Amino acid sequence: MSEHSAESMIGADRAAAMLGIELLGAGDGTARTIMTVRPDMVNGLDLCHGGLVATLADTAFAAACNSRSRVTVAAGFDVTFLRPGKVGDRLLAEAREVVLQGRSGVYDVVVTREKDGSMVAVFRGRSRATGA
Amino acid sequence: MSEHSAESMIGADRAAAMLGIELLGAGDGTARTIMTVRPDMVNGLDLCHGGLVATLADTAFAAACNSRSRVTVAAGFDVTFLRPGKVGDRLLAEAREVVLQGRSGVYDVVVTREKDGSMVAVFRGRSRATGA
Amino acid sequence: MSEHSAESMIGADRAAAMLGIELLGAGDGTARTIMTVRPDMVNGLDLCHGGLVATLADTAFAAACNSRSRVTVAAGFDVTFLRPGKVGDRLLAEAREVVLQGRSGVYDVVVTREKDGSMVAVFRGRSRATGA
Amino acid sequence: MSEHSAESMIGADRAAAMLGIELLGAGDGTARTIMTVRPDMVNGLDLCHGGLVATLADTAFAAACNSRSRVTVAAGFDVTFLRPGKVGDRLLAEAREVVLQGRSGVYDVVVTREKDGSMVAVFRGRSRATGA
Repeated sequence: MSEHSAESMIGADRAAAMLGIELLGAGDGTARTIMTVRPDMVNGLDLCHGGLVATLADTAFAAACNSRSRVTVAAGFDVTFLRPGKVGDRLLAEAREVVLQGRSGVYDVVVTREKDGSMVAVFRGRSRATGA
Repeated sequence: MSEHSAESMIGADRAAAMLGIELLGAGDGTARTIMTVRPDMVNGLDLCHGGLVATLADTAFAAACNSRSRVTVAAGFDVTFLRPGKVGDRLLAEAREVVLQGRSGVYDVVVTREKDGSMVAVFRGRSRATGA
Repeated sequence: MSEHSAESMIGADRAAAMLGIELLGAGDGTARTIMTVRPDMVNGLDLCHGGLVATLADTAFAAACNSRSRVTVAAGFDVTFLRPGKVGDRLLAEAREVVLQGRSGVYDVVVTREKDGSMVAVFRGRSRATGA
Repeated sequence: MSEHSAESMIGADRAAAMLGIELLGAGDGTARTIMTVRPDMVNGLDLCHGGLVATLADTAFAAACNSRSRVTVAAGFDVTFLRPGKVGDRLLAEAREVVLQGRSGVYDVVVTREKDGSMVAVFRGRSRATGA
């Protein structure tokens, strides 16, 4: 897969497109994604569904761990929620590589509210490069 | 919020509705949700986006921890992916309470592919009851 | 390592011996270990050090994932503390396999106080079988 | 508790003393601890017991989250093992606060081998301040 890149991978990500998640940039084990909380993204308490905050972070994680030209998948992740997102909030996810060792990596993602920089969630992803 | 229930909470969850997540049942710290993987739910590898698998599990977790008539939110969760979901797969999430102590709880969710029962993901949620 | 077993592995575990951790039994992806909280095992609040509660659980996890005659190591774990252990408490850790798929497995461990069965911690380990 | 500090807390930690864990410094949500892997700290594979690597990290975490003069306990933690420690290795744990919000905090700890700086484990702790 000679043309594998974070951009091609996220460009082909139909779930990210459906949720309006944009890739702002990726490279050297880092990536940034952004999403606006729409009225159809909230839970029964009128707050951004935690699963969608995690999906935004997971997309930044996927871009970061695929920024090294090797097909890599998520083995799992942990997320801690700090402050809810509300309709209209633009949420920014910034991923960075903590360690990449052989086929396994650990990536941290911080999700903040763009307008004031307050932290919405912290996320830690565990990656695994596939065969090729 | 005298009529708080898992059903009212998930019934008002617009993100779950947007993703076609259905609540099959909830009670006594347990809940089951189901979702069909649609073509607009896959990532750049044509597999169900891990964030959406987590969203399905998180919705079962929310239903389970709100099945005790007390408004409860997710403090965080950990998910491990075992096998990818594909377009057309019906994914079933089954949540159960591991422990509820004071305001804090731990809930396990197992996500399986309905057609053969194979495990797609295991999820562990940390909950916290709010003020009231 | 033709005679690899949980018993041989824990029998050679000098850290477990130093902490007085005993293996009560292991087999088919399960294991049970027990430890008495000694005066030299408490932290600055006079409660059993969380790291040692985790060590007890990690030892049950190691026994469980090595009960299938394949050398297996911990890739990582998550632990949630529910109630502190005190000097003199006998803490029991019971591990069970949630899933084993190829070289990767997930194991749950519950740590309880032997005298009343109250939950001290819940632990989830991620395992990986090594080469042989 | 006017004299509460990371130093007083770790100074009274008998488990840390038993394991030879030293506090190198603490302040402003950070802390550093160090431990030498002794022959009685290895598991059945002759590698430093993962639970003791976690105990070292947990002690740095405890010092970091108690460096703000408020009694704080661990709600839980996640650890990923990257490379084993061996007898004689000096392992260094460096903790830093990711976020502290109300009574809840998240702290990251990186454990490295002192002689070459290679990463042994990454740890993320979840803290909760107690009543006072």
